[in-house]
Amino acid sequence: MLPAKAYAAYGATSPLAPFEINRREPGPHDVLFDILYCGICHSDIHYARGQFFGPKYPVVPGHEIVGKVARVGGAVTRHKVGDMVGVGCLVDSCRTCPECRSNQEQFCNDMIGTYGGVEKGGNMQTYGGYSTRITVDENYVLKIPSQLDPAAAAPLLCAGITTYSPLRHWKAGRGSKVGVIGLGGLGHMAVKLAAAMGAEVTILSTSDSKKADTKRLGASDFANTEDGASLARLSGHFDLILNTVSARVGYDAYISLLKRDGTLVLLGLPDGPVSFNALGLLRKRRNVAASLIGGIRETQEMLYFCAEHGIVSDIETIPIDQVNAAYERILKSDVRYRFIIDMASLL
Amino acid sequence: MLPAKAYAAYGATSPLAPFEINRREPGPHDVLFDILYCGICHSDIHYARGQFFGPKYPVVPGHEIVGKVARVGGAVTRHKVGDMVGVGCLVDSCRTCPECRSNQEQFCNDMIGTYGGVEKGGNMQTYGGYSTRITVDENYVLKIPSQLDPAAAAPLLCAGITTYSPLRHWKAGRGSKVGVIGLGGLGHMAVKLAAAMGAEVTILSTSDSKKADTKRLGASDFANTEDGASLARLSGHFDLILNTVSARVGYDAYISLLKRDGTLVLLGLPDGPVSFNALGLLRKRRNVAASLIGGIRETQEMLYFCAEHGIVSDIETIPIDQVNAAYERILKSDVRYRFIIDMASLL
Repeated sequence: MLPAKAYAAYGATSPLAPFEINRREPGPHDVLFDILYCGICHSDIHYARGQFFGPKYPVVPGHEIVGKVARVGGAVTRHKVGDMVGVGCLVDSCRTCPECRSNQEQFCNDMIGTYGGVEKGGNMQTYGGYSTRITVDENYVLKIPSQLDPAAAAPLLCAGITTYSPLRHWKAGRGSKVGVIGLGGLGHMAVKLAAAMGAEVTILSTSDSKKADTKRLGASDFANTEDGASLARLSGHFDLILNTVSARVGYDAYISLLKRDGTLVLLGLPDGPVSFNALGLLRKRRNVAASLIGGIRETQEMLYFCAEHGIVSDIETIPIDQVNAAYERILKSDVRYRFIIDMASLL
Repeated sequence: MLPAKAYAAYGATSPLAPFEINRREPGPHDVLFDILYCGICHSDIHYARGQFFGPKYPVVPGHEIVGKVARVGGAVTRHKVGDMVGVGCLVDSCRTCPECRSNQEQFCNDMIGTYGGVEKGGNMQTYGGYSTRITVDENYVLKIPSQLDPAAAAPLLCAGITTYSPLRHWKAGRGSKVGVIGLGGLGHMAVKLAAAMGAEVTILSTSDSKKADTKRLGASDFANTEDGASLARLSGHFDLILNTVSARVGYDAYISLLKRDGTLVLLGLPDGPVSFNALGLLRKRRNVAASLIGGIRETQEMLYFCAEHGIVSDIETIPIDQVNAAYERILKSDVRYRFIIDMASLL
């Protein structure tokens, strides 16, 4: 076993604090890498606070992980020592089911989460990226293109792929009109990616203070969703709306903004049931769907797309002892747009 | 004006009774036809009882209309005297909006319903097919292929197209697995049409008494939706589920029966909001959508498809003075599977 320093939640209400974990010795197909940066995803907070996965405390969050390869197993062919690599939300899957065979490992029933899962062939809980190093099977390790700043690339591994995948699946591109609900970690990536794909992007937000970022992020329009006139102006406007807001929202209002055959895609779990009037769908054959991160192949494709288009996350880098303060600020939407833990602060 | 005999609801709670209406004289583009048969759709009951469209009583329901052309306007090219023709749920639309220009008149904001609409260039309420004749613009009149029994073809104009259109839109066919919730007027057409397209069809019903019809209608399987074990067996099974049941159902259970990327399509308005847990969609990128009848071109295509495959509705023909009794039986699901009014009984 390889000891590693980490930060863990010791309970649903206790602040995160230092913790010692063990990583497995790299097997023939494993990559061991030193973690340089880890993004803080809103899901980390849900997990640390016991709202996801039934955590067995202490738990180590973090699934936007970038670092440098330190050691590789004898059979590893995809990565070599010194490579800049990344790991997102999953570290393994069954590899034999129809989902795995079609490169949609995120839908595999035996997908192993980067945190909150159980290591293959054992009963050890998986620990996330708030840590100095990690061992992962080479097939679940992504290459970080050299054109991308490693710190700012970390959020691509969750926020990036979570928005890229539905944009591709529902064919956003030149000529299509995309709305993005919520301008946070996911939302600002959705805007950048959709704009780079050629779509006309509108930000749908409750926060007028973020309006100034509209053009810089690549959007062409901003509408305050609490302003009825703004919404009425956009009635029947969108081919695709990505909802990046986990809190329960007024689905009927958003559905009315879709064109015929348009789709509202939920990217997170709301805190209650999804509920709407069927008439909004019926009148224009509209769709409500949901999308979950993306597969490994698509994540790598997304990283190359970002390299080609010069896309990374807007970040604020912090040392790990500020993680609890960062959680509080995230809950107040007080970050533009992602906190990154500089793991040098944990050494 | 051309007088016509009809049956009307005089109020939300009064039985239907004889009524005299006027049809317009055929203009240059109009077709006047003698109505031979009219199906009774569940929507007729909602309308007659004041649950749709804010009716101005007396109202004449009926939008599954088949008859023989009696007179045509001077500019009519599509139909001629003596032709067997039909009219479904719409009798006109704006003809210039993107929906009309793409042959999706059912989504035109100015679509004129066969009943409950307002005649173009006037303020006269449109009257449906429980009547001896009707004048309709030739572009909204369908040809009934000679291979089809005219009485049994009438339900194709609503129940048929309402199920055919989503089966085509979501690409049901060889290799796809289709579930049909509810085995009534719409449901039995959905089964016949999906089977003729080559799909493997499962009937999802609460009524074991209808199980005997499984093979005859073309389905390969029947599951009682109130039997948990039956449903569990079909978890993740379907590419497409058509929900033909207007009453509110347990959406979470049906969503769990879909494969990855599968779609649950609502074909009617439930009597309350659509509500479900987002996790069911998120875990397999599933979709919830709704579909509304179909366009005129697609309705004609469907009629030719039915002629080719020998598909009509299962019907029970009644004289018009039994319409009130038929309404009561429909509300008890006591018809296999569509009542047809023989309009000779009104002459």
